[in-house]
Amino acid sequence: MNQARSLFEPNTVVLIGSSRIKQEVGMSSPQLFKNVIHNMRHFFKGKTYILDTEGEMGCKTLEDLPETPDLAVTMLPADQSTRQSEACAEIGVKAVVALTGGYKDHHRQKLRNLRREHGIRILGPNTILGVINTANGLNTTFEKDLMPCQGSISVIAQSGGVGACILDWACHYGIGISKFAFTGDKIDVDDIDLLQYLKEDPETRVICTYLEGIGDGREFIRTAREVVKKKPILALKGGTTKEAARRALSHTTSMVGSDAVFEAAFKKAGIIRVRDIEELLNAAIALAKQPPLKGDNIAVVSNVGGPAILAADAVIRTGLKLAQLSNKTRHEIERQYPGVDVLNPIDLVADARAERYSVALDSVLSDPNVDGVLVINMLKSCFFEQEDADAIVAASKRHPDKPLVDVPGGGEDFQIVHKALGETHVPIYNSPEKAAQALRVLRAYSKALAHKAEWGKRI
Amino acid sequence: MNQARSLFEPNTVVLIGSSRIKQEVGMSSPQLFKNVIHNMRHFFKGKTYILDTEGEMGCKTLEDLPETPDLAVTMLPADQSTRQSEACAEIGVKAVVALTGGYKDHHRQKLRNLRREHGIRILGPNTILGVINTANGLNTTFEKDLMPCQGSISVIAQSGGVGACILDWACHYGIGISKFAFTGDKIDVDDIDLLQYLKEDPETRVICTYLEGIGDGREFIRTAREVVKKKPILALKGGTTKEAARRALSHTTSMVGSDAVFEAAFKKAGIIRVRDIEELLNAAIALAKQPPLKGDNIAVVSNVGGPAILAADAVIRTGLKLAQLSNKTRHEIERQYPGVDVLNPIDLVADARAERYSVALDSVLSDPNVDGVLVINMLKSCFFEQEDADAIVAASKRHPDKPLVDVPGGGEDFQIVHKALGETHVPIYNSPEKAAQALRVLRAYSKALAHKAEWGKRI
Repeated sequence: MNQARSLFEPNTVVLIGSSRIKQEVGMSSPQLFKNVIHNMRHFFKGKTYILDTEGEMGCKTLEDLPETPDLAVTMLPADQSTRQSEACAEIGVKAVVALTGGYKDHHRQKLRNLRREHGIRILGPNTILGVINTANGLNTTFEKDLMPCQGSISVIAQSGGVGACILDWACHYGIGISKFAFTGDKIDVDDIDLLQYLKEDPETRVICTYLEGIGDGREFIRTAREVVKKKPILALKGGTTKEAARRALSHTTSMVGSDAVFEAAFKKAGIIRVRDIEELLNAAIALAKQPPLKGDNIAVVSNVGGPAILAADAVIRTGLKLAQLSNKTRHEIERQYPGVDVLNPIDLVADARAERYSVALDSVLSDPNVDGVLVINMLKSCFFEQEDADAIVAASKRHPDKPLVDVPGGGEDFQIVHKALGETHVPIYNSPEKAAQALRVLRAYSKALAHKAEWGKRI
Repeated sequence: MNQARSLFEPNTVVLIGSSRIKQEVGMSSPQLFKNVIHNMRHFFKGKTYILDTEGEMGCKTLEDLPETPDLAVTMLPADQSTRQSEACAEIGVKAVVALTGGYKDHHRQKLRNLRREHGIRILGPNTILGVINTANGLNTTFEKDLMPCQGSISVIAQSGGVGACILDWACHYGIGISKFAFTGDKIDVDDIDLLQYLKEDPETRVICTYLEGIGDGREFIRTAREVVKKKPILALKGGTTKEAARRALSHTTSMVGSDAVFEAAFKKAGIIRVRDIEELLNAAIALAKQPPLKGDNIAVVSNVGGPAILAADAVIRTGLKLAQLSNKTRHEIERQYPGVDVLNPIDLVADARAERYSVALDSVLSDPNVDGVLVINMLKSCFFEQEDADAIVAASKRHPDKPLVDVPGGGEDFQIVHKALGETHVPIYNSPEKAAQALRVLRAYSKALAHKAEWGKRI
């Protein structure tokens, strides 16, 4: 059994903090403690106990608890958190999430000893936000009432801040999440443990990671390869420049290799790299909702000319190609819509509605020269009809083997179509460039799957 | 007097369309005609006349009008629009906005003749959306009730679709706009005319352009150089790849040179190039709100570690540098906040509030080693206080010579801070990478201004 399980699937949790501690720079303030208590009480379906070392919000010591909890969450200063972790290990708590930062080497060593002597698993310290599991409502973050909706994307973030940004983004845009783990200093539970857990987690389809450094690179690659055979892994790497890496060292105390080393490692492992947080989530949405892209040839189907040209530029810049449409496709569309010029990108003209999109999408998705489709449906802020959006989803469902992404470009347009299609299996993006990046990622995963057969055991 | 003036500053406008025409692929549908009438009646402060050729919504011919309008907007099929333009030219209308597409060579030739014989200025055809002037409420677009708020950013867009996307984005995010011109086929009024007009327009501080092709490249560069001495020009180029350029040719019938030619032209003219619509607007906001960045050295001031590292990576990837903070700056901040490690990027720790930001920002903005600042203030979805946001604006006001940009990273965080600061002079972005791009653009404009002295007359 993967031991990381007790981090995500505890039946009982104890929150260890203080509602009276003097506020200080750090994560041990009474307000943050109260926020975590609030979130756990509000969301967690299991049992939550409170251990308030200096106040009156719960019991005073672990002995006061009526049962041994599976998971402890510590948010006291390093000295006290370490002592509490020792007490937890002794009574048989299975795992600790150490939220607070500011641990010194001797604290870390003590925690490592606990792991060795008692088998207790420790996430952190300095995880800041801890863990989220949308299935059982576990939420150790201090961001009050912030809980993403249930979905199939899981996130491993070494930084609380980057994790918080991803979490905030996911909540705001309704992106379905399965698990979140904020790894912090990684003195015990590391990316390898978490990848192994998520590989077997039936609720996870896509894994997003934010990394600054990796401990055992060889083992990481070996593990990631096994995971990638089952589900895609995306990576955003922080500290890629020398100057930022210096800061990463003091941030999460991880050794940060040169960017070229990581690039090679990701490539070997079949991990797909992204450039920023938005692209990480955009890529995850595509992988969660659409099949891999089996070839390079993309058809662009649009109701506006300029954005279709930008889409064509973007498709080519990502390394994909504009599909050479078959004569059959061209004749099919031109016969029905003589005003439409069927050159890829196809401009269906501004007043294209559900029917014209359906005909065009069926044609291009049936075309053996086309591997995937980038749809642009704009000008929605004034002319939106639900059936126009539904037609795109229906066309995609009729051709489940070829990926389709949709661009209602802009602010208002995006919001309207997002409301209509956000929960369907069609990923939507607010610009052609982001949609092209999503297709690039779907292509990269297809290539990773194709290469897995060739992967030997040596790394 | 710049003749493009009558396009933006007419006292009287006639809208020429049909409320009864059979709907067809194109821009001449009765619904679109009604939408333009609605927008003009709703927003335009001058006088609007309607000429409804087949219906009963206004008068039947130009002779029925009580006065000669300054501007005519045609939205009939090409044949009829051309005839109406001829009639307009004969009675002394100063300018025509030709919304409809589908013009053939002989139509274009007729319009060019009108220009030559009567001096009438013609925007389009195929401009799709025409013009907007937020100062007098002129709005010939068919996107009902879509009007950006008044501001100092003007936009020249060759494509109606890209223009619509920019417009939608600007309206949704409350980005202040002065003028919009959708140029379409550019048979008469071109980028050069519009640049000359916007150069003298007191309401315009920044000019955004979306271009697929340019007519007279040499004259364009000469004009742009003169403009850039007074205000920055941003350019998004569509059809940069061979495949997309082929489509651009059929889209707006403009010859599209190779991307290298445009790159060189933009460079010669001091035009700052961007990669997509979002970056175009993000850059325009920075230029409208902040001074040019006079050197490469950026300080990152953050309350979260990981995003600060991503910001540092992004700053360096854009070609800027992380500032080497002076000892004075480091001692000032560390003396007051012993828990804060003053290494650039500076991590003020998650609980940093107004006071800590004020002290740190005053220190770095006073530091001669620092040319500009990228602020990250996150975790706002749960802890937002107006005074924390205000402190950033106040610090920026105390140091008006050095640019400052702010990153409340994420979805909810961004929205909260955008509500608080969107109308101040501090530009805000939802990711560190976008803020770094904004700083790059501020640096590029500073360099363009520095080079203008060296620009000779020969191009």
